Amino acid sequence: MNDTQHAVLDGIEDGPASGPGIAADLGVSRAAVWKAVEALRAEGFSIESDEEGYALAGVPEYGAGAVEYRLAADHGLGGAFDVEYHESIPSTNARARELAREGAPRGDASGAVVLADEQTGGRGRLDREWVSPSGGVWMSVLLRPDLPPARAPLLTLAAAVATARAVGDVEPDCEVGLKWPNDVLAVDDAGEERKLAGILTEMEGETDEVSWVVVGIGLNANVDRGTLPKGATSLRERGGDVDRGRLVATLLSAFDRLRSVPGEILPAWRERSLTLGRRVRIETGGGEGIVGEAVSVEEPGALLVEGGNGTVRMHAGDCEHLRSDGE
Amino acid sequence: MNDTQHAVLDGIEDGPASGPGIAADLGVSRAAVWKAVEALRAEGFSIESDEEGYALAGVPEYGAGAVEYRLAADHGLGGAFDVEYHESIPSTNARARELAREGAPRGDASGAVVLADEQTGGRGRLDREWVSPSGGVWMSVLLRPDLPPARAPLLTLAAAVATARAVGDVEPDCEVGLKWPNDVLAVDDAGEERKLAGILTEMEGETDEVSWVVVGIGLNANVDRGTLPKGATSLRERGGDVDRGRLVATLLSAFDRLRSVPGEILPAWRERSLTLGRRVRIETGGGEGIVGEAVSVEEPGALLVEGGNGTVRMHAGDCEHLRSDGE
Repeated sequence: MNDTQHAVLDGIEDGPASGPGIAADLGVSRAAVWKAVEALRAEGFSIESDEEGYALAGVPEYGAGAVEYRLAADHGLGGAFDVEYHESIPSTNARARELAREGAPRGDASGAVVLADEQTGGRGRLDREWVSPSGGVWMSVLLRPDLPPARAPLLTLAAAVATARAVGDVEPDCEVGLKWPNDVLAVDDAGEERKLAGILTEMEGETDEVSWVVVGIGLNANVDRGTLPKGATSLRERGGDVDRGRLVATLLSAFDRLRSVPGEILPAWRERSLTLGRRVRIETGGGEGIVGEAVSVEEPGALLVEGGNGTVRMHAGDCEHLRSDGE
Repeated sequence: MNDTQHAVLDGIEDGPASGPGIAADLGVSRAAVWKAVEALRAEGFSIESDEEGYALAGVPEYGAGAVEYRLAADHGLGGAFDVEYHESIPSTNARARELAREGAPRGDASGAVVLADEQTGGRGRLDREWVSPSGGVWMSVLLRPDLPPARAPLLTLAAAVATARAVGDVEPDCEVGLKWPNDVLAVDDAGEERKLAGILTEMEGETDEVSWVVVGIGLNANVDRGTLPKGATSLRERGGDVDRGRLVATLLSAFDRLRSVPGEILPAWRERSLTLGRRVRIETGGGEGIVGEAVSVEEPGALLVEGGNGTVRMHAGDCEHLRSDGE
């Protein structure tokens, strides 16, 4: 969305404003205002027009315009993220990696976002399939932070916290919690946990500093439970369909805030954790694994597990929450 | 170097062996033996030929053949590394990244090695220039280990230990020690420390697992001190020119051994450390830094610095060894 479109939306969101008046306020031609209105309508914004002028009557539910408008209007983050939307794409992470390699300025406060309604080749950790039907939130944030790869797991935790906050905001009835290292779970009244969202963080760089990081977030939003794998759930199942534009803007805003105050990431994650204090089984590939109590999460996102042979610091792995009897 | 060439060298290294005899031993044609001998001579091997047969009279000082022969003959690692040699190349790390992206099998015990006599665009950490004149050892090892990016700094430490071991083997008069995070220093009788070698580790992957790691090693071997930056030294200055083929083979063998027993990496690094127990200044970019005593190196290669505000765990940064009076 360009600056004129942002400004036009800003001018008409609280009631009718005349084309000539907006043009004068912005210092652009009346034709430029008209062009912006047409472009916004094409993006799905409902803009009424009568003798009093233009008025915003509806915001699209999803898409680049929806997210950029919500970021500006609800979070004061106009222009902070550059959103690219696809109705269908093989993988938003793959597209974000492509953008990374094409180059983009370093040290951005925020970043580029790739957003899709459907992924045809979505991937989770360790190249596992990630089912991504139409109606979900499939998004990747491209960042170029001054951060060593060793600390990139913090961004996974930050994205998980931000996702939980955004879900809590749009769907307060859905109780969510976090599972180490990268899952957002929905918890029902019986305490049953099901996967609602997952994070996949990828990076390239040298030991001292990444040259880019892509934080992929897959959230089962307005999708039928039946289209998802066993053990998964969706917001549609847990409370009803949500406004995805509002959800994504809240998520990005929360993520942006945590990135700017990295010291808040671990405390915020711990507070929402379902893993800490639980008996867990962590598998690290090749059938190796340990069982013990998850006692803490520490820099740079490592899980401390207390087992029979003392405390082990896990940097990666599959985590399974066990029942207290160890099953 | 192909299998026949390896086998021919093996057959003639301890004295003359007849072409027909070698051919019969290997189960190949006499023409194949002759072709292998010619290829080895073209690689710089000196192979004498008289009525008794072929005899190895000299091994080239450097290059792919020299390193692969030394790996096989001195370390029992024939075929473990696939070495690609360039007389001059912009950057061995850049070439290794290219090989990584072209794809190569995962989980190799060892890896591909890019070796050069000269780099025209050598780079150190944080994109700093790395002066790489002809006569040095400029090499990059491409690996695809099952390792999270967070633990990749261990490979930097392993490469530093391996470099120090190899230097000690070919030039015992040159006293060397390690500076966190990635330097090998030469120490003179007056205790003055100068940079002899540096490591640059690059990677790409997801939080759980790298898809590749490139470990670049730059060692000022047979080069004039005058061609190097202030604060650097060379093996030529510290004891005399060395056989680089022997040195690289010893380095790769030591690195391979450490990789297979990762638990030995930190103890081996600590043992050769010049940083531990010292007052250090660590700068992390943007003018931020801390001063304190370097008390330990721990998983995954982090330096623990005890300063006025307690112990800080550093994952990356520039380390300066201070005099005990803090200057």
